[in-house]
Amino acid sequence: MTPVTAPHPLPGFPRSTVDGYAVRAADTYGVSDGLPGYLEVAGAVRMGAEPGVAVGPGTAVSMPTGGVLPPGADAVIMVEYTQEAMPGTIEVTRPVAPGDGIVRADEDAAAGAELVPAGRPLRAQDLGMLAAAGITAVTVHARPRVTVFSTGDEVVPPDTPRLRPGQVRDATASALAALITEAGGDPAQGGIIRDDAGALEAALRAALHTSDVIVISAGSSVGARDETATAVSRLGAPGIWCHGLAIRPGKPTLLADCAGVPVIGLPGNPRSALVVFRLIGMPLVRQVGGCTRPPAEPVVRARLERDLASATGRLDVVQVRLHDGLAAPVFGLSALLSILTAADGYVIVPEEATGLDRGTEVDVTLYR
Amino acid sequence: MTPVTAPHPLPGFPRSTVDGYAVRAADTYGVSDGLPGYLEVAGAVRMGAEPGVAVGPGTAVSMPTGGVLPPGADAVIMVEYTQEAMPGTIEVTRPVAPGDGIVRADEDAAAGAELVPAGRPLRAQDLGMLAAAGITAVTVHARPRVTVFSTGDEVVPPDTPRLRPGQVRDATASALAALITEAGGDPAQGGIIRDDAGALEAALRAALHTSDVIVISAGSSVGARDETATAVSRLGAPGIWCHGLAIRPGKPTLLADCAGVPVIGLPGNPRSALVVFRLIGMPLVRQVGGCTRPPAEPVVRARLERDLASATGRLDVVQVRLHDGLAAPVFGLSALLSILTAADGYVIVPEEATGLDRGTEVDVTLYR
Repeated sequence: MTPVTAPHPLPGFPRSTVDGYAVRAADTYGVSDGLPGYLEVAGAVRMGAEPGVAVGPGTAVSMPTGGVLPPGADAVIMVEYTQEAMPGTIEVTRPVAPGDGIVRADEDAAAGAELVPAGRPLRAQDLGMLAAAGITAVTVHARPRVTVFSTGDEVVPPDTPRLRPGQVRDATASALAALITEAGGDPAQGGIIRDDAGALEAALRAALHTSDVIVISAGSSVGARDETATAVSRLGAPGIWCHGLAIRPGKPTLLADCAGVPVIGLPGNPRSALVVFRLIGMPLVRQVGGCTRPPAEPVVRARLERDLASATGRLDVVQVRLHDGLAAPVFGLSALLSILTAADGYVIVPEEATGLDRGTEVDVTLYR
Repeated sequence: MTPVTAPHPLPGFPRSTVDGYAVRAADTYGVSDGLPGYLEVAGAVRMGAEPGVAVGPGTAVSMPTGGVLPPGADAVIMVEYTQEAMPGTIEVTRPVAPGDGIVRADEDAAAGAELVPAGRPLRAQDLGMLAAAGITAVTVHARPRVTVFSTGDEVVPPDTPRLRPGQVRDATASALAALITEAGGDPAQGGIIRDDAGALEAALRAALHTSDVIVISAGSSVGARDETATAVSRLGAPGIWCHGLAIRPGKPTLLADCAGVPVIGLPGNPRSALVVFRLIGMPLVRQVGGCTRPPAEPVVRARLERDLASATGRLDVVQVRLHDGLAAPVFGLSALLSILTAADGYVIVPEEATGLDRGTEVDVTLYR
C-alpha cells in the first residue's frame, strides 16, 4: 500500500487527560495543603461539545477526561487535588504546570504526518489510527494471484474416497494455498496435470495470463522433473534461472522467469515442497505483493538435544520438537509429511556449518 | 476442533523413495565396483499403477520415485549404483539392506493415528496431511461471536468527514475487530452508545443473546466508567468480577460474567484499551473458541536502551522501537494511539519488579 498521512491534526483540539478543572496554571503556583488556593467555578465542559465558557484569572471550569480545553486555560488539575470550599468555589491544594493534564491538539499526529508506512501489512493499531483520522479506505497493493499446479500420474484430488494401489492424494496443493494466503497472496488451484510435458506446457501457458506467480509441485521422479523443466523452458524468456538448490530437503527446486512471471518448480515430496516454499516462495509472494516490510516470524531460542550433521555449502532445514528448552530434531524421509506435522518449528543449519553440536543454542522458527 | 485420526495407513502402500530398481536385498550382498552383481530386469513399475510384475531371486524391476514396491522386493537400489550390462540385465555395484529406498505403507501414519490434535489452529502442513488422508472436512469450533460497543457522547463513527469541536472518531472498535479476528473470533460492531446507563444496558441486554463475548470500550471519564459499571451490573448474575487491574496502561478495566457471557469493559483511552485487550481479551476469545493451544507470539530478545521505572505490584506494558539489538521505550500519554503505531513491540515489566535497568536483556513481543 501507499503511505497514508494525517489529513488534519489529531486529536484536533486540546483535550483533557484527567477528570478535574481547567485552570490557568499560574493561579495554582505556590498552593499546598496548608495554603490552598481558591478558584471560582465558571462553568462545566460537556463531553463532545464545544466549551461554552472561558477560563479567566481566578476561575476554573469543570472538565471530564477527554473534554475540550476551554479558551484561556493552559492546564487541567485532577479532581483529587481539589475540593469544593463552598458552592461555586473550589480549593486547590497542588500546583500544576502549563500543559499538565492536557493532550495537545496535534500531539497524536500533526497534519501531514505519516500515519502508516508503505509496504507493511496493516496492524490493529494502524487501523485504529486510520479510523481516528477518518480514513476508512486506503489504496493497497492487490493480492498477487498465485496459481498452483500439481503434477504426476499418481496424484489424485484430496476428495478421492478410495485410492487404487499406487495413487496418492494431492497433499501439497492445499498446504501451499494456506502458505500463499499467509504471505498475502490469492491462491488459485490449477489442478493436477498428468506427467506429460505437452499437457503441462499448455496448462502453464494458459495460467501465465492470469497469474502473478506460478507454483508447480513437480512429480518426484527424474522423468517427471525433466518434463517440468522442459515445459517451463518453453514458456518464455528469459526462462530457467536455476535448477537445483543447495538446500536439504529441497534440492530439485527449479526457479524461472517466464515472460515476466516468476515460476517455482517445487520438489515432488510434500515435505520438501513445503520447506522450500517457506524459504523461497513466501518471500517471493510478499515481494510481488508489495510487502517490503514483512511481519516477523515467531522464533524461540532452544538448545539442541543432539548433534546435527550437515555438509559445508548446503543449507539444512531440520524440523524440531520443543520440550523443556530443548530442540529435539525430528528425523525421517523427505517423503514423510508427518515430520512436519509432528514438529513445532525448524532450525536452519547454515551453508558454512558442517553441523551443529548437541547443546548449541539455536533459533527455532515456529510453525503457526 | 476435535482430534482427527487417519482412516487408513499412509501412504497406503510400500513406496519407492528413489529412482532405481526394486530388488531382494539379499541378491545385492557383497557386490562392489570390482565385483558387481547381475540381475535380470523383469519389468517396470509405472507411476500411479499397480505393479504388473513381481521380483523373484536374481531379478529386478525398474522403479520411479513414488512407485509401488512390487511383490517379492524388500528394497530399491538407486539407479546411480546400477548400469545396464546388456539389454534386460543390470549390473549392481552397491549392496542394499532390506528397507533401503522404501517408505513403508504406514510410515507417514498408521490407521487410527492422530493426524491433527484438538485445540490448535490448523497449520499448512496439517491441511496437507488431512488432504493426504482424504479428509476434506473437519469439525471445528465455531468462531466466537464477539460484539464490540463503544460508548461516549464525544465518539462518532470513523467515516464522519468533519468533526465538531470535542468530537473524536471511534478508533478502538476497528482495531479491536482486527485483534478479535486474529484471535479466531467473529467481531460484530454493536455501535456507539451515548453516555447513558439505560441506553447502554438496553444495548448490552440485546447483545447477550447473540454474543459469546461482549467488549465495551468504555468512556474515559469517571462518570462514563461508572455508567458502564452500572449497566453491566444489571445484566445478570454472577455479575462483575473485578473493576480495576494492576496494569499500566489499563487500570480502569472491568471484567464480568453476565448470565454466562464474559463481558470486558476496556479503558476509554484507545491505547490502554488495545493493550488490555491483547493481554486479557485475546486469550479469552481463544479460550471461548476452543483454542487451547494458541500459536506462539513472535518474540525477539533485545537490550533496554534506558531505565524503565515501575512500581511493585503493578504490571507495566511498555511500547518499544527496535534498532541495533536495542529496545528503545516509546513514552507518552495513554491517550496517544501514536505510541502504539510507532512501536515495533512491547516489553512487560512484571508485578514483582520495581523497574528494569538500562542494558537488561528483555523479551520484546512484536506487533504484527
